Amino acid sequence: MSVLQENDPYVKDMKQVETAALFRQILRIMEELRQGVKKPYKEVIDVTSGDPQKTGMKPLSFVRQILAACLYPQLINDNKLPVDVRQRAQRLLGECPGGSVGSYSATRGVPDIVQRVSEYISRRDGGAWSNPENIFISPGSQWSLANIFQILVNTEASTRTGILTPVPGYNTSILSIKEQGAVPVPYYLDEEQGWELHMEELHRALASAKGVCNPVALYIVNPGNPSGQVQSRQSIQEVIQFAFEKRLFILADEVYQDTVYGEKSEFVSYKRVLAEMGPPFSDTVELASFHSASKGMLGECGLRCGYVELVNLDPAVMKYIYTQFSKDSCAPVLGQIALDVMANPPQPGDPSYPLYIEETQHIRTTLVHNVNRAFTVFNSLPGLTCQPGEGGAFLFPRLDLPPRAIQKAKEAGLGPDTFYCVNLLEDAGVFARPGAEYGQKEGTHHIRICIMTPPDIMEELLRRVTSFHTQLMKDFS
Amino acid sequence: MSVLQENDPYVKDMKQVETAALFRQILRIMEELRQGVKKPYKEVIDVTSGDPQKTGMKPLSFVRQILAACLYPQLINDNKLPVDVRQRAQRLLGECPGGSVGSYSATRGVPDIVQRVSEYISRRDGGAWSNPENIFISPGSQWSLANIFQILVNTEASTRTGILTPVPGYNTSILSIKEQGAVPVPYYLDEEQGWELHMEELHRALASAKGVCNPVALYIVNPGNPSGQVQSRQSIQEVIQFAFEKRLFILADEVYQDTVYGEKSEFVSYKRVLAEMGPPFSDTVELASFHSASKGMLGECGLRCGYVELVNLDPAVMKYIYTQFSKDSCAPVLGQIALDVMANPPQPGDPSYPLYIEETQHIRTTLVHNVNRAFTVFNSLPGLTCQPGEGGAFLFPRLDLPPRAIQKAKEAGLGPDTFYCVNLLEDAGVFARPGAEYGQKEGTHHIRICIMTPPDIMEELLRRVTSFHTQLMKDFS
Repeated sequence: MSVLQENDPYVKDMKQVETAALFRQILRIMEELRQGVKKPYKEVIDVTSGDPQKTGMKPLSFVRQILAACLYPQLINDNKLPVDVRQRAQRLLGECPGGSVGSYSATRGVPDIVQRVSEYISRRDGGAWSNPENIFISPGSQWSLANIFQILVNTEASTRTGILTPVPGYNTSILSIKEQGAVPVPYYLDEEQGWELHMEELHRALASAKGVCNPVALYIVNPGNPSGQVQSRQSIQEVIQFAFEKRLFILADEVYQDTVYGEKSEFVSYKRVLAEMGPPFSDTVELASFHSASKGMLGECGLRCGYVELVNLDPAVMKYIYTQFSKDSCAPVLGQIALDVMANPPQPGDPSYPLYIEETQHIRTTLVHNVNRAFTVFNSLPGLTCQPGEGGAFLFPRLDLPPRAIQKAKEAGLGPDTFYCVNLLEDAGVFARPGAEYGQKEGTHHIRICIMTPPDIMEELLRRVTSFHTQLMKDFS
Repeated sequence: MSVLQENDPYVKDMKQVETAALFRQILRIMEELRQGVKKPYKEVIDVTSGDPQKTGMKPLSFVRQILAACLYPQLINDNKLPVDVRQRAQRLLGECPGGSVGSYSATRGVPDIVQRVSEYISRRDGGAWSNPENIFISPGSQWSLANIFQILVNTEASTRTGILTPVPGYNTSILSIKEQGAVPVPYYLDEEQGWELHMEELHRALASAKGVCNPVALYIVNPGNPSGQVQSRQSIQEVIQFAFEKRLFILADEVYQDTVYGEKSEFVSYKRVLAEMGPPFSDTVELASFHSASKGMLGECGLRCGYVELVNLDPAVMKYIYTQFSKDSCAPVLGQIALDVMANPPQPGDPSYPLYIEETQHIRTTLVHNVNRAFTVFNSLPGLTCQPGEGGAFLFPRLDLPPRAIQKAKEAGLGPDTFYCVNLLEDAGVFARPGAEYGQKEGTHHIRICIMTPPDIMEELLRRVTSFHTQLMKDFS
């Protein structure tokens, strides 16, 4: 007796077989390593996700001290912690219901924190107006994105809702679009031009949707994931102009905004460019901009918190947004506090300032070092090419494998990139994800690698990839 | 379809407009108080949610010390914290990816924590078997419940999926059922019998679904929310027998399992009773049991974490459960650690044991005091009757208002219970929720009050309710 059976039509298939196989493989290898099975490596280097602390990057002391003091307020009276930490913790607790991080906050977030996030956005954007009423703190940017998809997607229309999505693009978001019953309409980033976004490609993609679906939104990831590209102000302006003309809602995933390291790159927010373009753009183009405590300098993935700012939404739609964002309880309060610290880091003269600067500089130096080293090494290997990383947590090098390797993959029932990742993991203990998960131009194959690791781990990773890749090219040449 | 809809206590009573009005009112009053507007009270007592720390209950030191040490590991070397706290924090960090609470964990939870939660369940249930593979840690029990609804509900079938739900029942869950496109099939708890669940009522409810929907599951809240009732082992046995015969999936919301204070009451889990009933029940009846770090003794709502244990699910369905529970990232890691502490409190001989016992005893004494005092006071007022609270965080006293009060409510476009809550908030500064939000028998009206407050707050609340209620009865007599 079982209420649910495998062949029940309502049990939904969501996951790719190949990805599942890769995850079973990593679990097996981890278990084998635990049991002392001999392998050419003692530990797996896992660069599958943008999770800096997993690979040994250190959290920011200022964030952790404040969180610890909020959790255990006796620390506020303990002069081991810097006085600005203790004052900040005291103030934050005063803003939490019941003076505790153990209470539910308002579902949109602690109002004082929402207010300060709004002020932070305004400062970031050269004074552009930001309204706290349009900011929603949530358990993460992907959570917010899924909720907004749910509102954008009309499941009852005879024509399905389309959402323009980058290729390559962030796989979780694309899955989320599909789950809502919408159609991702792919637009291709130009790999040869450092993964640039071209306007003619957006036009082509939009035209391709004709007769298939009704595109209502344009999903952008900037800095790019997995591309590592950073959009110029000019490019953003053109995209906004396009969205204005075609009446598309812009979904701007900007979670890597504080990790831009390309020499000529600069992060400019969609919100800022929109504000600076003035009417009719600034008061009509609908925009959702996402940010997170998990990514970039903070890297506090385990805290589970992010926010979205909404611009130019119809008040009637905002009512649905309020409802949609209220159906769950609040985001974790400690995550909200981390967001507050992100929005308000220590200032010159504060006791915590010197250490904060030292730690953030160290992270920045590490990322620049890693991305340059990886770029150099990948491009030095035959059959591997890599575009420069300008920002974000990833590189997306391209594999040009010998035909015999591709044939071998086919025999194993795998795509060439998955075949590569499976063997890279098995033989070299490097866990990377295949490009197929992110979308790639027909006939091209990639792997995604997170570059947020301590430099010695990056060096070890590059050694392993070099050795594995060289051997593979030899074996199949 | 008409029979059920006419009698649907949720469709009829859950007027979102009224709830929204109440929330606007509380925001206005809070703002007025902030601005120094004179009112008969200086602060609002908010007893709308089971959020103990919001009303001033203290968190458990052991939990907070461990969390603080995990966040800021320098504290592990600081001998100000008890040695068992420091050891535990050290061990927990060793179990987190990268040794940090800032990394993502496995989506189902840190494996070692899942394992210990499983062992805890087994101890709780007198040694009944528990498999860690069937346990999923999530951002909260409501999150898990919504995900399981999503798998149970067949949106493509010509007959809609039905879920038997208690009246009164927890409103968030009922909303969640409706959001998934399912039909809540109400079964009424017997108020006069202390909100007991009667088998004939379950049979009646199931029969009422005929021709309306296809009931696949039975949702139970034990200890009851908002009823405060605790089911006997005998009653649970009967429910399991019923579920077996009717092939219903049991969804057991057991988040208040550690707060049972009725003199003759005892919490027995559905899992335990199921195991003890033996075959054919123990190996066929499908069960999901939910627990949370937000409720009961821990009361850490702000951390956002809970777990569900699944029993007897078809392996093919479990595959979809894995997928469903993997589509988001992990639960907040600090919440997972709080769950671990819940599952493994200090033991006799541990340095933290005496304080832990003192604090938990204090909470227990407070709850028993509050529930008894509230019971006595409510029942002493004409037009108010209250069933004894046996467990959980709430009482659900019944209002018998004079006809003129009911008329007045009607003129204001409000249900009598919402009218009562609006005035109780405005005049007495007590924020309670109307029974309509939870479902109630036609013609009856209630309010829900959380009893998890410090005793002095409870006394002040009872003074305010007494004074307000007496005046209201006089004004409308």
